[in-house]
Amino acid sequence: MAKDKKMVKAITSRDVDFAQWYTDVVREAKLCDYSSVKGCLNYLPNGYAIWEMIQADLDRRFKETGVENVYLPTLIPESLLQKEADHIDGFAPEVAWVTHGGMERLQERLCIRPTSETLFCDLWARTVQSYRDLPKVWNQWNSVLRWEKTTRPFLRSREFLWQEGHTIHATYEEAEERTLQMLKVYQDCYRETMAIPFVSGRKAEHEKFAGAQDTYTIEALMYDGKALQSATSHFFGSGFPDAFGIKYVDKNNELQSVYETSWGWSTRSIGGLIMVHSDDDGLVLPPRVAPTEVMIIPIAQHKEGVLDRAYDLMAELKKAGYRVKIDASEKSPGWKFSEQEILGIPTRIEIGPKDIENNQVVVVRRDNREKIVVSLDEIATKLRDILETMQQDMYNKAKDFLESHIYEARTLDEMVEKFKTDRGLIKACWCGDEECEGEVKYNTGGAATRCLIEDEEMISDKCIYCGKPAKHMAYWGKAY
Amino acid sequence: MAKDKKMVKAITSRDVDFAQWYTDVVREAKLCDYSSVKGCLNYLPNGYAIWEMIQADLDRRFKETGVENVYLPTLIPESLLQKEADHIDGFAPEVAWVTHGGMERLQERLCIRPTSETLFCDLWARTVQSYRDLPKVWNQWNSVLRWEKTTRPFLRSREFLWQEGHTIHATYEEAEERTLQMLKVYQDCYRETMAIPFVSGRKAEHEKFAGAQDTYTIEALMYDGKALQSATSHFFGSGFPDAFGIKYVDKNNELQSVYETSWGWSTRSIGGLIMVHSDDDGLVLPPRVAPTEVMIIPIAQHKEGVLDRAYDLMAELKKAGYRVKIDASEKSPGWKFSEQEILGIPTRIEIGPKDIENNQVVVVRRDNREKIVVSLDEIATKLRDILETMQQDMYNKAKDFLESHIYEARTLDEMVEKFKTDRGLIKACWCGDEECEGEVKYNTGGAATRCLIEDEEMISDKCIYCGKPAKHMAYWGKAY
Repeated sequence: MAKDKKMVKAITSRDVDFAQWYTDVVREAKLCDYSSVKGCLNYLPNGYAIWEMIQADLDRRFKETGVENVYLPTLIPESLLQKEADHIDGFAPEVAWVTHGGMERLQERLCIRPTSETLFCDLWARTVQSYRDLPKVWNQWNSVLRWEKTTRPFLRSREFLWQEGHTIHATYEEAEERTLQMLKVYQDCYRETMAIPFVSGRKAEHEKFAGAQDTYTIEALMYDGKALQSATSHFFGSGFPDAFGIKYVDKNNELQSVYETSWGWSTRSIGGLIMVHSDDDGLVLPPRVAPTEVMIIPIAQHKEGVLDRAYDLMAELKKAGYRVKIDASEKSPGWKFSEQEILGIPTRIEIGPKDIENNQVVVVRRDNREKIVVSLDEIATKLRDILETMQQDMYNKAKDFLESHIYEARTLDEMVEKFKTDRGLIKACWCGDEECEGEVKYNTGGAATRCLIEDEEMISDKCIYCGKPAKHMAYWGKAY
Repeated sequence: MAKDKKMVKAITSRDVDFAQWYTDVVREAKLCDYSSVKGCLNYLPNGYAIWEMIQADLDRRFKETGVENVYLPTLIPESLLQKEADHIDGFAPEVAWVTHGGMERLQERLCIRPTSETLFCDLWARTVQSYRDLPKVWNQWNSVLRWEKTTRPFLRSREFLWQEGHTIHATYEEAEERTLQMLKVYQDCYRETMAIPFVSGRKAEHEKFAGAQDTYTIEALMYDGKALQSATSHFFGSGFPDAFGIKYVDKNNELQSVYETSWGWSTRSIGGLIMVHSDDDGLVLPPRVAPTEVMIIPIAQHKEGVLDRAYDLMAELKKAGYRVKIDASEKSPGWKFSEQEILGIPTRIEIGPKDIENNQVVVVRRDNREKIVVSLDEIATKLRDILETMQQDMYNKAKDFLESHIYEARTLDEMVEKFKTDRGLIKACWCGDEECEGEVKYNTGGAATRCLIEDEEMISDKCIYCGKPAKHMAYWGKAY
């Protein structure tokens, strides 16, 4: 049974025009579209359902580490946003301001939160008094708004969905540990659930979050060789909470500073899912984040008994815990195959009169089109194996891609050459000066440090640009 | 083991000062508090966790009826809000306006959504063409903002959390059916999950949602005898979508109008939970919405084996699917009892050396303080029965309260008298004139129609105020 090619011709090849391919996949899989509000997206059912899968997985991981969910206001008074100097410098240029409420002009402008550190600190300044009130390990699932100039679905939009975790602790060490613990939660979720490999580490000084002492990042490599900053975890030390006057009385009755962290993961991750796994036929989703794991497609469904058997199969699979749908519409099987592939449903089950006669079905994997004949007696258990194998295969494939696209460079020429002919990440050493990075960026057409590499021996003792002693080795790459 | 009274003295008696009692319970149970943003709340972990329980329950019920979740922008351009005349009249006085983005003044003001009918219709006007695109049965979980003058935790605040469902259909009948179907989903959730009984029906003409043809409401009766509008479902007919130009081509290739519904349930429902079930010792939660169902409190926990056995019990109950916690802190058992009661955890399990010797525990219900001795061998099954019985008992108690607080009145004097001496709802007939309702409201100190009663015989054929022929019988009451 041939696939119907009419539907997929709407998708540009990703090797011909990656940006267009991305837009085509987002549109054809009906994940989101632009709204009448410039730079803001409508998250459609197919796209939002992926976000719900990610949310459920992350939320479970958070709660296992003791995180509690809360919800703080959308609006932040201007005076509150201004309390920490670096923070306001970082965010003031990109917030939206509310100036009128109802018919009245407000006495103080309110911004729509671009992030909520200031609101959390304001609340804690009023409510935290004693060591008994610590730690606070809180998170919220919400939307934030940043007045971006250019926007792309999931990757950059004025409003986006995310979670922002905020914590305060009695000691420096505990807060630092929490920063790394949440980074690990993100890493686990990318590896195990999103099937996305990555490099990870600290951000260079000038790339840190506004007001943070350390920012840790996860950088995934997209199919076009660009990096995507995929989640971040920040350690603030006590500077931020001190600016808000959060202090606690310890067991010895002495006044102490608290230490703060924050960490976020956004709908940008859906862009990463697309650009790591999908192909010219549409979306490819790892089973663990797929809202539907399997689509049953009856063959010759007008023949007696086929539809009944297909519905029975659906009921059986549903009972066994699968997220399953059936396409019993009047469309041709070929058309249905194409649609299932565009939507990125990990597997389809073809079931026709011949299959029923032989007490079997054909399972087809979305990622590699492998066809697997499975006995109807065993499908409810075998399908889980197929999905788990697919999940693992997708991760391995992406990991091979990442590893084969990491290069080394010891001179600027080497690096320029690499970024001309190859796509990927380059390990190179650096003096730590922002200006040198700027020059590299200019010469390579956009490659900058993605994160520092602190657990490997440096491949050179000189800065790749100025030749002075190198302070860091870093992954360099072009990025979204 | 006596309860520690020190903690609960912070709660005013609800029979002495109901408003203060409400504020005290919200504060002592740490559900939410005010933020630095006037009229906006911080939803704290204990309060937000209840919302998560409600969300999970409602979301499951929605999806069983085919609802798909989406997310549309927070901001609405002024021109879009103005497209439907009644709607803008209803909402313009109470929205917050964004006038600046980043450093720039915007060409068109954007409001923060007070509700999203306009955004859904705008999206559908661009994307719905054919009968094949119908129906759309969408919902979003989000926050909305209305510039209220006076605010009270959960009951009325400028920003609140809710879900708003929006649907369009090919026929009038299908849309009307969906309106009632979602009303029923809300009714089921109130009855089965929130243990809250109610009266329910259509709103009077002038009480309808801005732009709706019919508004159906659920009205629950609070302990102080006031009604709380607890969820609403609206039928728009085709007026609203026509204003946005949503049309579809039917099977005969003819252009047709679509028919619209919307329906919402907000964090206000948490206020209802408090005012229906809670008492002078703090929060009382029906087990099905309680984030924690049972608190294990070890007695004489320093004695050998007690803590070990208590932790084993927790592990056993967790494995059996209970939401269980243990309080193994250094506080006295009496203090722990008080705390568990303030927080509204439905049951506690007391386990001490004597209990262990007798292979038993004592389960204490929060609602009626009943003490139930259960064998340790049976606790994992018996506790479920206790919680289910408690759930049912709480519903029955609230239902008795509701039924014994519904009265009838045939004259204004009767009604005024009733509202002076009793608290509750009054059935009375009415000509349908808004002015008559206003006079009744004035004379009774605030009682107005809550919803029409259309399935019972009218108790009078005259309007309770003007004496002209009655058009409707309605429930009248004072309300939040």
